[in-house]
Amino acid sequence: MSILVVGSVAFDSIQSPAGKVEKCLGGAATYFSLAASYFTKVRVIAVVGEDFTAEHENVMKKRGVDTSGIERASGNTFHWSGSYVENLNEAKTLATDLNVFEKFNPKIPAAYKDSDFLFLANIDPVLQNTVRKQMNGVRLVGGDTMNYWITGHTANLIETLKGVNVLLINDGEAKLLAKESNLMRAAQKILTFGPKALVIKHGEYGATVFFGPGSFGGGTHPFRAPAMPLAEVVDPTGAGDCFAGGFMGYIASQDEINREVLKRAMFYGGVMGSFAVEKFGTQRLQELSREEIDARFQIFREISHIE
Amino acid sequence: MSILVVGSVAFDSIQSPAGKVEKCLGGAATYFSLAASYFTKVRVIAVVGEDFTAEHENVMKKRGVDTSGIERASGNTFHWSGSYVENLNEAKTLATDLNVFEKFNPKIPAAYKDSDFLFLANIDPVLQNTVRKQMNGVRLVGGDTMNYWITGHTANLIETLKGVNVLLINDGEAKLLAKESNLMRAAQKILTFGPKALVIKHGEYGATVFFGPGSFGGGTHPFRAPAMPLAEVVDPTGAGDCFAGGFMGYIASQDEINREVLKRAMFYGGVMGSFAVEKFGTQRLQELSREEIDARFQIFREISHIE
Repeated sequence: MSILVVGSVAFDSIQSPAGKVEKCLGGAATYFSLAASYFTKVRVIAVVGEDFTAEHENVMKKRGVDTSGIERASGNTFHWSGSYVENLNEAKTLATDLNVFEKFNPKIPAAYKDSDFLFLANIDPVLQNTVRKQMNGVRLVGGDTMNYWITGHTANLIETLKGVNVLLINDGEAKLLAKESNLMRAAQKILTFGPKALVIKHGEYGATVFFGPGSFGGGTHPFRAPAMPLAEVVDPTGAGDCFAGGFMGYIASQDEINREVLKRAMFYGGVMGSFAVEKFGTQRLQELSREEIDARFQIFREISHIE
Repeated sequence: MSILVVGSVAFDSIQSPAGKVEKCLGGAATYFSLAASYFTKVRVIAVVGEDFTAEHENVMKKRGVDTSGIERASGNTFHWSGSYVENLNEAKTLATDLNVFEKFNPKIPAAYKDSDFLFLANIDPVLQNTVRKQMNGVRLVGGDTMNYWITGHTANLIETLKGVNVLLINDGEAKLLAKESNLMRAAQKILTFGPKALVIKHGEYGATVFFGPGSFGGGTHPFRAPAMPLAEVVDPTGAGDCFAGGFMGYIASQDEINREVLKRAMFYGGVMGSFAVEKFGTQRLQELSREEIDARFQIFREISHIE
């Protein structure tokens, strides 16, 4: 099954306790695509500038990602600069140069319209909704968002969420979106906005998926997947997007979409997120094998399952 | 198998978003005893004042707890007053009246010396060590501590930890004790201080047990147990002590002490902690049945296990 992802392709300049890198390939759509590429066919819609070279594109192409939906505009590619030196759990943004991304107006190539799955990475909810409405019979729509859209573009986001089947956000975003400090109650409220499942990511503590009433075969309890306890985190950038890529990619690789599939998808999400942070930028995501991924899946199982 | 717990029996005055209570029965040894009593025989060493009535003692006695080691001193019982109104995850201490607890000098009744398990609740590490040294052939020593002892009585605590087999603390305490902000590295360092296993509690995100090299049958990976996502937390007081009670109590109920037993004990710890917060004080811990406990254990399994 094919997944279409719409989002940013960017250059990131990152500082962390482990060192620093300048203008390495990044962006939510890039991380998502690479992570999902180990499970299924991936297509990308994004915009890049003149500084985006064939070498950059090859990072995705080598993983079999269809990059024909990446539009080239005059100007520079979106550039983000951030630091994790003081806090590995939260990036301090040093600079955001939107560049060509400022006027991003996603166009869906005809050949992409039959994609089976759609992932709306973190962009303006109005654009997310426009893309979603243009698709033909997508089986499942996943989506992401962030504080900026939650607080400043609330009505647009709420409208978009009506068409999102699985929303993936973190604790802080969930509490902000629901205006509710208890996570369980926040989840219950968000599930009334449209999504049939809500994945809340807890960083180093794992993630929880909450199910809407009767969704995905029923079951009243949420499901918690662990994160890998890591002695070193080199660069947390893209961990959330890789979680989404592993999660959506695994679902797209399965015949049925049910609760058990979503539970395993939570594990694969955590697995891909755990690889992402081991090296700067997308480096670790370029060099994996499915065997390595499945070996780590087994570790996730061992660290969370009793006999 | 019998467990001896040494720690505080207290009166707590608690405010939370759910309401307030005045001078209800509390204290680490009380919560621990009640939680562990559903699994095994429990004996308590503590000190109380003249305001501690037969009715208070009966709360423990009704659960079969041996209270003959509770010493009566002239003066009032330890009284703690705290509020969770602003933050359910961390108590704001409003008042601490140590009263008779200030001169607590635990004496071990002869009949207690053969206890199979020992739990050193959060008291002065010098007292913890004195108690531990007086015991005959304990199978496993569990212990707790807090920031106050970690920062102000470091040398004494490090000395005491040499004799503690399983230390149970929270994230903040672990990082402070190890002087290390990465949790995995903090755990690895603490495991060189003496404990063969270290349980780090993450509040609403569950808990992780880290094993020392070759301890409890080996295995290199830590183990993570979930916490129950709860729509309402009435009173978080004692949740950590109930975790310890469920954890140690379950271990004491088993013939062998190995990695699998410790993993299941992590689940029972989480289960008892999840009950503790449902009502003010020790109320919920007084009225449980083993059937309710095992039903919740199954829920913990469902919310964390894939097929």
